[in-house]
Amino acid sequence: MKKIETIIRPSVFGSVRQALALEGIDGLSVTEIAGIGKQEGRIGMFRGNTYKMEFSPKLKLEMVVEDSKVEAIIEALLDYAATGEVGDGKIFIFPVEEAIRIRTKERGDVAVG
Amino acid sequence: MKKIETIIRPSVFGSVRQALALEGIDGLSVTEIAGIGKQEGRIGMFRGNTYKMEFSPKLKLEMVVEDSKVEAIIEALLDYAATGEVGDGKIFIFPVEEAIRIRTKERGDVAVG
Amino acid sequence: MKKIETIIRPSVFGSVRQALALEGIDGLSVTEIAGIGKQEGRIGMFRGNTYKMEFSPKLKLEMVVEDSKVEAIIEALLDYAATGEVGDGKIFIFPVEEAIRIRTKERGDVAVG
Ligand SMILES: Nc1ncnc2c1ncn2[C@@H]1O[C@H](COP(=O)(O)OP(=O)(O)OP(=O)(O)O)[C@@H](O)[C@H]1O
Ligand SMILES: Nc1ncnc2c1ncn2[C@@H]1O[C@H](COP(=O)(O)OP(=O)(O)OP(=O)(O)O)[C@@H](O)[C@H]1O
Ligand SMILES: Nc1ncnc2c1ncn2[C@@H]1O[C@H](COP(=O)(O)OP(=O)(O)OP(=O)(O)O)[C@@H](O)[C@H]1O
Ligand SMILES: [Mg+2]
Ligand SMILES: [Mg+2]
Ligand SMILES: [Mg+2]
Repeated sequence: MKKIETIIRPSVFGSVRQALALEGIDGLSVTEIAGIGKQEGRIGMFRGNTYKMEFSPKLKLEMVVEDSKVEAIIEALLDYAATGEVGDGKIFIFPVEEAIRIRTKERGDVAVG
Repeated sequence: MKKIETIIRPSVFGSVRQALALEGIDGLSVTEIAGIGKQEGRIGMFRGNTYKMEFSPKLKLEMVVEDSKVEAIIEALLDYAATGEVGDGKIFIFPVEEAIRIRTKERGDVAVG
Repeated sequence: MKKIETIIRPSVFGSVRQALALEGIDGLSVTEIAGIGKQEGRIGMFRGNTYKMEFSPKLKLEMVVEDSKVEAIIEALLDYAATGEVGDGKIFIFPVEEAIRIRTKERGDVAVG
């Protein structure tokens, strides 16, 4: 099992979620985060004044999946989360030692869905 | 050291917290997340209309603990977070390479509490 | 690559952020969390009444960095996040298997910034 963590723009969430569902993902967590990246280094214009952005609101999606699904999910995220502009975000893959479904006490791959 | 991450129903938080305290856990982080799972596939009724739920509010608890405590904490979570209904959530175990207490600069197991 | 996760006091965020920028960190995520720690075991006073604190608001910073930067970032965090009072928080280091920049599909160390 792996944990896939992705930071995306809020604007792409709807299509990313649909793409993940088509890949068979029906369990994930969504958290609103304040993102700091290259995007915030840029000077913006607001009501005629220049300002330096401090944060961009982003969504963090976290899902634990079987090893065999990881590459397909990365492809789906790359297809649906990219706009081509700075600030599209990241995908990070982490090792997972165990997953347990609280309702049934099942462990391992069967606990993930 | 391991990181234990658990997604639970907000309604069980009080008893889960007490159970964790009894296992000697006095450091953890709690985050409100929007959960997507099988639970959201179901059609609900609200004021006479059917609707498809989009998210369920859940709590994510994160705690880094010594290896020797992991199984007892899993047992406590299974005992106090389960209701038997779909949507009870998950427990995930992750490897940790280092833990540091900022106040004292201590590292390793002693830094966890 | 490693993930550095740190729980800090909101009051030190400004100087921690500057210190991280000086170490070349220009990508991170900030999440507001409810912290439970030794700090909450203490009895506080509010409007003449004693009360037991339940949570302390903390910030969780998450950043994925190249292995070679980890120790310098730990030093920067220890320098700028410590006040010496109970509740200064923690630094945790986690293994990372892959990082991908969504905009360019680049993988590995070059995807981190
Ligand atoms: N190394 C990192 N570790 C953790 N989170 C990061 C990291 N880099 C970026 N992020 C997150 O991703 C968001 C987008 O970052 P950024 O604006 O740099 O865009 P990007 O996709 O990295 O753009 P670019 O394509 O130019 O690198 C940030 O707001 C931050 O939340
Ligand atoms: N694979 C997963 N990765 C990350 N988070 C998940 C995953 N599966 C479920 N979750 C989280 O757990 C919450 C509960 O999921 P779900 O409704 O599927 O319940 P469940 O406990 O998996 O139910 P069931 O017992 O039928 O599987 C979700 O809202 C989501 O936040
Ligand atoms: N083992 C842990 N796992 C995850 N998060 C923790 C852990 N211990 C502490 N934390 C987080 O760090 C915050 C600060 O914890 P605490 O008040 O214990 O301070 P501390 O820095 O551990 O103090 P002390 O220096 O006395 O240990 C907590 O509110 C919690 O969010
Ligand atoms: Mg499920
Ligand atoms: Mg402590
Ligand atoms: Mg970047």
